[in-house]
Amino acid sequence: MRKINIGLIGFGTVGTGVLKILRSNSKMIRERLGASIVVKKIADLDIKSDRGIKINKGLLTTSVEEIINDPSIDLVVELIGGFEPAKTILLSAVNKGKHVVTANKALLAGYGIELLKAAHKRKVDIGFEGSVAGGIPIISAIKEGLSANQIRFVLGILNGTANYILSKMTNEGGKFKDILKEAKQQGYAEKDPTLDIDGLDTAHKLAILINMAYGTTITFKEIYTEGISHIEPLDIEFARELGYRIKLLAISRQINGQVEARVHPTLIPVTHLLSKVEGTYNAIFIDGDAAGPSMFYGKGAGMMPAASAVVSDIIDISRNIVREINHRVPMFSYQREFLKKVKIKNIKDVVTRYYLRFSVVDCTGVLSKISGILGRHNISIHSVIQKSRRVKGVVSIFLLTHEARDADVRKALNEIDRLSVVQDKTMLIRIEDL
Amino acid sequence: MRKINIGLIGFGTVGTGVLKILRSNSKMIRERLGASIVVKKIADLDIKSDRGIKINKGLLTTSVEEIINDPSIDLVVELIGGFEPAKTILLSAVNKGKHVVTANKALLAGYGIELLKAAHKRKVDIGFEGSVAGGIPIISAIKEGLSANQIRFVLGILNGTANYILSKMTNEGGKFKDILKEAKQQGYAEKDPTLDIDGLDTAHKLAILINMAYGTTITFKEIYTEGISHIEPLDIEFARELGYRIKLLAISRQINGQVEARVHPTLIPVTHLLSKVEGTYNAIFIDGDAAGPSMFYGKGAGMMPAASAVVSDIIDISRNIVREINHRVPMFSYQREFLKKVKIKNIKDVVTRYYLRFSVVDCTGVLSKISGILGRHNISIHSVIQKSRRVKGVVSIFLLTHEARDADVRKALNEIDRLSVVQDKTMLIRIEDL
Repeated sequence: MRKINIGLIGFGTVGTGVLKILRSNSKMIRERLGASIVVKKIADLDIKSDRGIKINKGLLTTSVEEIINDPSIDLVVELIGGFEPAKTILLSAVNKGKHVVTANKALLAGYGIELLKAAHKRKVDIGFEGSVAGGIPIISAIKEGLSANQIRFVLGILNGTANYILSKMTNEGGKFKDILKEAKQQGYAEKDPTLDIDGLDTAHKLAILINMAYGTTITFKEIYTEGISHIEPLDIEFARELGYRIKLLAISRQINGQVEARVHPTLIPVTHLLSKVEGTYNAIFIDGDAAGPSMFYGKGAGMMPAASAVVSDIIDISRNIVREINHRVPMFSYQREFLKKVKIKNIKDVVTRYYLRFSVVDCTGVLSKISGILGRHNISIHSVIQKSRRVKGVVSIFLLTHEARDADVRKALNEIDRLSVVQDKTMLIRIEDL
Repeated sequence: MRKINIGLIGFGTVGTGVLKILRSNSKMIRERLGASIVVKKIADLDIKSDRGIKINKGLLTTSVEEIINDPSIDLVVELIGGFEPAKTILLSAVNKGKHVVTANKALLAGYGIELLKAAHKRKVDIGFEGSVAGGIPIISAIKEGLSANQIRFVLGILNGTANYILSKMTNEGGKFKDILKEAKQQGYAEKDPTLDIDGLDTAHKLAILINMAYGTTITFKEIYTEGISHIEPLDIEFARELGYRIKLLAISRQINGQVEARVHPTLIPVTHLLSKVEGTYNAIFIDGDAAGPSMFYGKGAGMMPAASAVVSDIIDISRNIVREINHRVPMFSYQREFLKKVKIKNIKDVVTRYYLRFSVVDCTGVLSKISGILGRHNISIHSVIQKSRRVKGVVSIFLLTHEARDADVRKALNEIDRLSVVQDKTMLIRIEDL
């Protein structure tokens, strides 16, 4: 039986998971693939720590070159993460003619087109199912399962840490910073959770999904991104009263060749399936012109779900290696010559509905002043509720708008926040009425 | 640019949808595939009816042979449905060396292994994504996206008509037969909805999912199947009070090499995502040993969702045709030589929890008699509620059991239903506490 030799670079959590699957399910993988996958070498700076898995010491090396320069290795698995040295290592593996599997979302979202060019030059495949939504096979669903469809929109809950915190705030109450602290203690948040809570990790993943869905080559830097650390229990509570849940949502739409791309906390109706995605789970909601709305749900992170995606890529590329073919499915869904440059719509031009919370002193005429300013900026009010509950002399006015242009809303809020009766910066959360 | 010539056999709803997609999305498909798909011929007994789509008359024929014997046709799409003549036609296309795409679940679920043998002999591919859950790419998710996983269980809501009726009974109330009548008028149920409401259509689909998930070759005849026509508003209502929804569920588990396979109405907790799958939507909930639980949700039927799956198969096989390869992914997930014969667990040996509704005369000592019989058959009671509401002198006792063996429950009910105080056959619905 044909053997596929692989080298693992980066032996952290996901790398350990990959080795676990390749061992425990080796018979099954052989029976599916018709070839066997052999781990020839594992490189990591730390080859001393106990990963809770028995390992032949000869398998380990601190030298990446030992893998990249080994002509018997067909496929390199890059699990270092981040931009460098991952990028240099990945590109040198490709330049040596090795296929690559990676879960590196930052790299794909920042330098995807560069990787694609290198892969084309050397006629190798790059698999990256593990870069978005862990165990959910969403990359292959978009590239292959839904290949008959013009994708109209992609919405996603793509960060488990952020979703865990918002779910906990919703279901059990509590302030953002207290729950984040608890999440760190329980291992649901990393020591430095910045990328997760400021939305950047979600933006990385959305950039990849957008490129797969529309055949484009954007980078994550083009995506408007807001995090969740400013969300207060008051907002969660009031959203609930209005029949909404607050989720950190990745949003992308293709309308008339223009692409909308943004990541921010969002009110979504409690009647929508996406609002039921709780805790560390991820979900992607896609609308295709033929298939209609679909949703893909599962574990977005963790050792074994991420390793599931990486190993499915190893198997997928091995099927090509066995048949001596490559680029059977284009890396970015569309054949390279048909990839389109698109202009992402500026956030200022995005039209949506808004949830606004004003913190004002409790006196007559305040609402009239606020609604007057909104009106002057073409923002019409859907509903408004003034809470009598006073916190330190301040009351909250909750307001939902009809559809309005982002730039208009910003201008209005700038004006409103300068009113002497307004005590704090107005809270703005966008609404998706799915 | 390379052209792939296809022939369409069966020009009904789905066939029309396929033609619509191939026309409206032809540019996109070319840009994804790097080849163009040309419909060379369409065969149907009826070539007169208006399908609401412009068509060159030279494209139509009543003769299947014109397609099968055309050496320029690379791929045949079979959309006749049912066993015959579909089976003969499909096999003759394969025997002529043509790849086949089909949405024929009955054929796959009844004669899958025969089709596989023929495809192997002639080295052609057979795609059947459209046979299960329409627009949801579940076949490829199991065969490829989750290929690193031992699948532990597959649960599915796989029939839109049955789910529509049960959802409507739950959300708006009403009797089964009235809602079925309404569903027929509104086009949500076929004129003869037998296959949908008696569970057989679901069993067809479950047989296919089981074979894909475990690498086996069972047929739908081995699956224990119950329909939904006996479900009463009383059951829906009481399930709701207990925190459950009733769904027609396809259930399959692999435990110690034994496979459990059954289709029946099932109480599932309202807290579980599957219970939120409403109306004509389908969903498949899968547990893999690495990826963990995932759910795939979308439109399970209808012209365009089904056509989305068929066209994705056409594209997938075309990628192989262009590269002159075949059987890149084995038809039943596992390489043919590793397909396993499994024994489906007899329903009598299945252990689960039960919802039981007894219709009894309102007198003292009834519950004691019933619980005595249950106890003698090793069935222990989880909870019991006796409703005071009397209908024609009969009251209902609702009872949930702990886990019990099916055979024991049957024996106990046989005994109970012979009691003089019992006025009607006891209602039994199984529970899945997900």
